[in-house]
Amino acid sequence: MVRTLMKPDDIKGAWAIIPTPAMDNASDWRATKTVDLDETARVVNGLIDAGINGILSMGTLGEAATMTHDEKLDFMKALVDAAAGRVPIFVGTTCLNTRDTIALTRQAFELGADGTMLGIPMWCAPSLDVAVQFYKDVAEAVPEMNIAIYANPEAFKFDFPRPFWAQVAEIPQVVTAKYIGVGNLLADLSAIRGRIKLLPIDFDYYAAARMDDSIDAFWSSGSVCDPLVTTTIRDNILQARETGDWSAARAFQARLGPTAAPLFPNGSFKEFSTYNIALEKARMNAGGWMNAGPVRPPYHLCPEPYLEGARQSGRMWAELGKALAAEK
Amino acid sequence: MVRTLMKPDDIKGAWAIIPTPAMDNASDWRATKTVDLDETARVVNGLIDAGINGILSMGTLGEAATMTHDEKLDFMKALVDAAAGRVPIFVGTTCLNTRDTIALTRQAFELGADGTMLGIPMWCAPSLDVAVQFYKDVAEAVPEMNIAIYANPEAFKFDFPRPFWAQVAEIPQVVTAKYIGVGNLLADLSAIRGRIKLLPIDFDYYAAARMDDSIDAFWSSGSVCDPLVTTTIRDNILQARETGDWSAARAFQARLGPTAAPLFPNGSFKEFSTYNIALEKARMNAGGWMNAGPVRPPYHLCPEPYLEGARQSGRMWAELGKALAAEK
Amino acid sequence: MVRTLMKPDDIKGAWAIIPTPAMDNASDWRATKTVDLDETARVVNGLIDAGINGILSMGTLGEAATMTHDEKLDFMKALVDAAAGRVPIFVGTTCLNTRDTIALTRQAFELGADGTMLGIPMWCAPSLDVAVQFYKDVAEAVPEMNIAIYANPEAFKFDFPRPFWAQVAEIPQVVTAKYIGVGNLLADLSAIRGRIKLLPIDFDYYAAARMDDSIDAFWSSGSVCDPLVTTTIRDNILQARETGDWSAARAFQARLGPTAAPLFPNGSFKEFSTYNIALEKARMNAGGWMNAGPVRPPYHLCPEPYLEGARQSGRMWAELGKALAAEK
Amino acid sequence: MVRTLMKPDDIKGAWAIIPTPAMDNASDWRATKTVDLDETARVVNGLIDAGINGILSMGTLGEAATMTHDEKLDFMKALVDAAAGRVPIFVGTTCLNTRDTIALTRQAFELGADGTMLGIPMWCAPSLDVAVQFYKDVAEAVPEMNIAIYANPEAFKFDFPRPFWAQVAEIPQVVTAKYIGVGNLLADLSAIRGRIKLLPIDFDYYAAARMDDSIDAFWSSGSVCDPLVTTTIRDNILQARETGDWSAARAFQARLGPTAAPLFPNGSFKEFSTYNIALEKARMNAGGWMNAGPVRPPYHLCPEPYLEGARQSGRMWAELGKALAAEK
Repeated sequence: MVRTLMKPDDIKGAWAIIPTPAMDNASDWRATKTVDLDETARVVNGLIDAGINGILSMGTLGEAATMTHDEKLDFMKALVDAAAGRVPIFVGTTCLNTRDTIALTRQAFELGADGTMLGIPMWCAPSLDVAVQFYKDVAEAVPEMNIAIYANPEAFKFDFPRPFWAQVAEIPQVVTAKYIGVGNLLADLSAIRGRIKLLPIDFDYYAAARMDDSIDAFWSSGSVCDPLVTTTIRDNILQARETGDWSAARAFQARLGPTAAPLFPNGSFKEFSTYNIALEKARMNAGGWMNAGPVRPPYHLCPEPYLEGARQSGRMWAELGKALAAEK
Repeated sequence: MVRTLMKPDDIKGAWAIIPTPAMDNASDWRATKTVDLDETARVVNGLIDAGINGILSMGTLGEAATMTHDEKLDFMKALVDAAAGRVPIFVGTTCLNTRDTIALTRQAFELGADGTMLGIPMWCAPSLDVAVQFYKDVAEAVPEMNIAIYANPEAFKFDFPRPFWAQVAEIPQVVTAKYIGVGNLLADLSAIRGRIKLLPIDFDYYAAARMDDSIDAFWSSGSVCDPLVTTTIRDNILQARETGDWSAARAFQARLGPTAAPLFPNGSFKEFSTYNIALEKARMNAGGWMNAGPVRPPYHLCPEPYLEGARQSGRMWAELGKALAAEK
Repeated sequence: MVRTLMKPDDIKGAWAIIPTPAMDNASDWRATKTVDLDETARVVNGLIDAGINGILSMGTLGEAATMTHDEKLDFMKALVDAAAGRVPIFVGTTCLNTRDTIALTRQAFELGADGTMLGIPMWCAPSLDVAVQFYKDVAEAVPEMNIAIYANPEAFKFDFPRPFWAQVAEIPQVVTAKYIGVGNLLADLSAIRGRIKLLPIDFDYYAAARMDDSIDAFWSSGSVCDPLVTTTIRDNILQARETGDWSAARAFQARLGPTAAPLFPNGSFKEFSTYNIALEKARMNAGGWMNAGPVRPPYHLCPEPYLEGARQSGRMWAELGKALAAEK
Repeated sequence: MVRTLMKPDDIKGAWAIIPTPAMDNASDWRATKTVDLDETARVVNGLIDAGINGILSMGTLGEAATMTHDEKLDFMKALVDAAAGRVPIFVGTTCLNTRDTIALTRQAFELGADGTMLGIPMWCAPSLDVAVQFYKDVAEAVPEMNIAIYANPEAFKFDFPRPFWAQVAEIPQVVTAKYIGVGNLLADLSAIRGRIKLLPIDFDYYAAARMDDSIDAFWSSGSVCDPLVTTTIRDNILQARETGDWSAARAFQARLGPTAAPLFPNGSFKEFSTYNIALEKARMNAGGWMNAGPVRPPYHLCPEPYLEGARQSGRMWAELGKALAAEK
């Protein structure tokens, strides 16, 4: 199997981040084969039909931490088969060390995944050198696999400083990054010199797109609450760039932003990170567009008031989607 | 195979924490079968001959994060075979989730390990409920396996508060804990009500033993720099308790304490945690008593001045051991 | 003395944040009357001549912590006298408690200051309720004094969450805020509902202005390295808004951004905060436009390599100013 | 006025930390002269009558942050007059900078205070150099005043590392320290080489005293809930040292420890620090031995459930005192 690496500008538009749909018993440690493969195929098809440009999977909310190895392979295959080459599929291959990561990344490549959304081994906080060398080693070992840096400071105990971006930008396999926040965006863009396509979160896409013209793609976990909202976020920016009139995009941002608030318990990002998976799956299930199912152990426990906030966030997103459909 | 669980008071004296000895090429991601099984057997025999009371393995410095699954099984078998029932062997089975942990713990039990030194899945910071339920689930799934709580706040993103200790004390399989610090010791002892034997680090054993009579065991990573220092720490306290005269134990603590200082880069525990494995293996190799070998990726990179501090710490420990031998 | 409060939209354009110029002996604890009043007057006149729209003073780098009470009054008077009503003058009146703050704010009002740039008492970390009530009490006590919230998380042990902004927006005296970062800007703007003019830092002004049209003012400590850079930042945005062409503003941002980097030791904001005053004064002195003088105790000690980074930042700003002058 | 500096071994036994008793209207920012001088005199006399060995005042719970300058002088005078040389009086002179601290320390000295319990200016986090030089400067400026290092990491943004202790131990005026925790006690004792008498908190005194014989004094904010508990803590250790039998001291520690728990909201030290003053005054008022009065602004607001926990802590201490009285 020989494949050509993507280029940063091959990454465009709205990239869905999806959960790993779970069977009803998936919170029980006795359960095996917990991936709902039918729902997986349905979701991939639905997202592609809705016009989503790419799919990221098996990150934190995608339960890369809590799937068994066999479940990971089954899920990867289901994703690739369902997409059938229509959009790029990135799967998560983050493990506790370099060698396991390389082995899993090779398997993902063999199964046909286009890339890996790859975080850093997180038992010890990585130094800058450790973080950069890790990506270099994986790239060297699986040279035809595209890499999306998975820049999650809470999960990986690393703050992804500017020198990190400058150095991983030298790795041809690193074509994109699931990025967080906009506070350092211009400085980080300066460090990467056009060699990595940074993807902000959907809620930040308006701001990021205004800050720099190179921002023309983003990630969206809300896409599985209703992909119409996600594609609208994308199309608003496209239209603004064509017409030079950003007022509609700004106005839509004012409708979108408030849907995020109830997802964060007491407004705390730290609390959100602790309950990330349970909150995101509750939000998605409340969105009504897909069935994300229950949470795999040990992360299946979450205070009910927090879950209710997440559900409210999902319902608000879904209602925004219904309003958009009605406005068309 | 039917076994009887240990009781907290079965844990006594000096418990060595050991590294996983590595072959010369172990820092290369291409390497396989990196465990030096001969050195493993030699170290276990040496520690037992020196009078060590138990062995803990496959924690952070034991590279549980970076060994492959096959290497873990090989190493466990080598430990159990070498010990041959003379002292209890606890192996690390910490994984990224509950199900993988259970599977590995079962394998460790089948291989004859007496217990698991078990940390908490660390992709997400665990809530109190998640942490407690995790230990309950593993205990339920492998009910004949003894559990040592591995209480490492940096690794597991959890501060092990008093309610945690109160709740895990209800789990019969939880017999001991690799504990850190003495600041909360009396309060935590009050919470566990005698149901868990807390093991402080060698450097804190004098202080902890004075604080409460129930403290009669400890862990020592220095034991593989020279086990005579470790058994002396133990025997000093035994003698003090018999005679009521603590002056020799206090005086020895004043000789022991300074050997820790150069292990911490710029005095920082956070920096130490980032480079934990590289520093501990450098210290052990400098001790001269065993060959810990190189560090597995991605944690094999460490600034040279930090390594030199660690080596100095190892040499100081070894010199203390030589002085003790001469004093006998 | 009766005065009318400002309105948020009275705050426009480029606001200089200035140091308190110090006599040569000001680092000695024996020194008294350490404020260089001549330089103060010269700087105020120079900034106004250069077209600066307002002046903020006596924050962290303005050494509000380390001036004596008499020096504060002398400096306030010098500022007000020099400005002579041409631009608004905000002085810092942050103290260790509510009553001292009110007393000093009243004195500032009597001396003719237009407003106070006011942080929160910082001995204890304030709760949300404490922070909000503090501003309410000062506003009630000195009702004709304009208040700029001084939102510095490191200094005041407070992260200025969205509910804070929602609640202080109800206080008529709170007309503006020295704001930091753009990561939460849209959410915070939503919370304040147009009732507070948020001022981003000069380095973030381009990004913030693109994110929301209400952002039409900013603060600039670089202004005293060369005010021409600061007014250019302002005018670029004005012009972009008139023409709809943001390319020149974006291009200038790419020239401006790199001047910030050497100000942060090892890229660390935390290290910068520890040495804030020494670094900012070194930067300003290296800029060559004014003489900020030495640092008052206890904050006068700073590693030389850090100072050299700050000086480099100041020289880069000054060189940018020279280039702008040449381009005109 | 010429006085001789104390020596570390002049500091012995139980040192009370007292609040600044407040008049009923003290939470109102309009209030002046808020110190209840009668209650101050009554408390000092009561503590001395109960056998307390020294008094520390005007720290965090002593509201050094929120008293006006005049109130500080009034309170200092009341303390000194009431003590009348019977026990040493240390007053707090922590200010926002070196010069104000020196001026206030001189006034305290002139008023007859024996020492200052001195924290570090806390607007900026101090570097090690800044912290050490601050104490050197104050000592040089007021050479006859004894200094107790006030080692509060939350208040002063400083973690008081071992090199700090090594360096301030060179300053003759630094005779003692209000110390916190026992985790670093042996290492810090090694650094200070007998030149500073470290005072642990009452709850840690048993542990600290067992760890090292040089620990023969401690601080106690509980003393104003009932000083009999505090003197019993002291006398238990004295008796154990005489008899070599520590069992009674250990048993009393088991009765004392639980009274601390409800003082910490949700077991959190960080939450306690935010509401320190309100919680400590609520605890003291519930103790019933003295009237600490209300809290000065801005720290007068605290959630009622937190206050109730603090009151419970105070009642438990008082009940322990009653039991002790009955046991005599």
